[in-house]
Amino acid sequence: METVSTTRSHGGVQGVYRHASTSTGTQMVFSVFTPPQAADGVKCPVIWYLSGLTCTHANATEKGEFRRWAAELGLIIICPDTSPRGEGVADDAAWDLGQGAGFYVDATEAPWAPHFRMWSYVTEELPALVAEHFPVDLERQGITGHSMGGHGALTVALRHPDRFKSISAFAPIVAPSQVPWGQKAFPAYLGSNKAFWRQHDAVALIEDGAWVAELLVDQGTADGFLENQLRPHLLAEACTKAGIRLTLRMQEGYDHSYYFISSFMEDHLRWHAARL
Amino acid sequence: METVSTTRSHGGVQGVYRHASTSTGTQMVFSVFTPPQAADGVKCPVIWYLSGLTCTHANATEKGEFRRWAAELGLIIICPDTSPRGEGVADDAAWDLGQGAGFYVDATEAPWAPHFRMWSYVTEELPALVAEHFPVDLERQGITGHSMGGHGALTVALRHPDRFKSISAFAPIVAPSQVPWGQKAFPAYLGSNKAFWRQHDAVALIEDGAWVAELLVDQGTADGFLENQLRPHLLAEACTKAGIRLTLRMQEGYDHSYYFISSFMEDHLRWHAARL
Repeated sequence: METVSTTRSHGGVQGVYRHASTSTGTQMVFSVFTPPQAADGVKCPVIWYLSGLTCTHANATEKGEFRRWAAELGLIIICPDTSPRGEGVADDAAWDLGQGAGFYVDATEAPWAPHFRMWSYVTEELPALVAEHFPVDLERQGITGHSMGGHGALTVALRHPDRFKSISAFAPIVAPSQVPWGQKAFPAYLGSNKAFWRQHDAVALIEDGAWVAELLVDQGTADGFLENQLRPHLLAEACTKAGIRLTLRMQEGYDHSYYFISSFMEDHLRWHAARL
Repeated sequence: METVSTTRSHGGVQGVYRHASTSTGTQMVFSVFTPPQAADGVKCPVIWYLSGLTCTHANATEKGEFRRWAAELGLIIICPDTSPRGEGVADDAAWDLGQGAGFYVDATEAPWAPHFRMWSYVTEELPALVAEHFPVDLERQGITGHSMGGHGALTVALRHPDRFKSISAFAPIVAPSQVPWGQKAFPAYLGSNKAFWRQHDAVALIEDGAWVAELLVDQGTADGFLENQLRPHLLAEACTKAGIRLTLRMQEGYDHSYYFISSFMEDHLRWHAARL
């Protein structure tokens, strides 16, 4: 693992790191904020932040406004990239498929299968790497994310219910199998067998028996993707049936941008910290 | 004035606006955050944030992390651009001269004089425009800025001591006449007569009798420009002699980036709010 940069911020250190990923077969970059509480190697709880379409680690790192709260609450914040990248890695001209659009799955289909293994990357490889190099308390992990990354956070948590003590999302894709983004990406990455899609669809996972105690979701009412791609009511219905305590906050007038995310970052990190 | 975008954030509105500037003879873009307290047209105090070399209005707007505190404290935050831009506007291949590097002066020299009139723009034209379109309480104005924008904030405030009730800066250029950045830009924009330079040099202005009651300055000790370009001790010496109460905080390990600015934004806005 190579250190790209470390920068003092809010009493802690905002780092950016690069490593050769065995999952994706590419160089992968991610960011880690270590709060002042971790300065002497004291283990701190960790929050995974999974980003949305088109993003790298950098978007949330620069615009998520999480450091103030992570520093106060003693949280390590990890922002992975959203896909493999670079020459020799398959891509698509569209912004919602290929590089920047990994959808947190292990692709089985050509041309994506060789490198697009973001599920293995964020659930296995990166956690092991982070545990080796940073003072993370693995008994105290939370996960969150935005849009496609909210989808990632929900599916990763629903399939690892014992790993995460706290789960939230900002404007997540809750049922990719039922919306255009997923109906484009899933056949491309996973093929036509919808049984495989259900493993990466939060609503389907809950319908199929996955269970966690509670979720926090914020969703802007002025989000241009709300009706067509996000449809949080589908998550609400599934949670009601499954007895999952969902706190779904419809935030009046907020859109899909980092101005929305940063507005509620404090609430989310306090929610996580209270449970970690 | 044209609205480029308005986005809900932290209970207020982050707007971006464009207008044809009579000062610069170009289209100019600036951002305004209006806090929730201003929602019904209630007049709020205003903080001017002047940005540094290479920046537009967007850098601080996206990475300054000011909205959380402005929303709490009821402050309107205005971020102007740092120079005129566009075709037909003089430029230089270097990043510290020309577009993105206006230094908050009215240029008198070719080829800069026709458009590089950022002093008139930020001290006269933009305040009048803002007063016309936003609920600003002109009796309660503060000013701050970063690097070249810290230089702008200090010089604008020292020459308008009755206009600003609070003045701060992040890693400001305090004595441009004595450092390479200023010794390159000032002859280009203002010519060789150093009497004109002194009108745009905070330390020189204080030596020549300009006075304000107090200043807050934060400066990172790991800032790569500290020794060569910023030299805050020159400001400290001038303030001591002039009886200006300078709070100069050397922040251990911080660099020149927005990670530094955002770390201390809360302190600065609380400082301003307490005086407005």
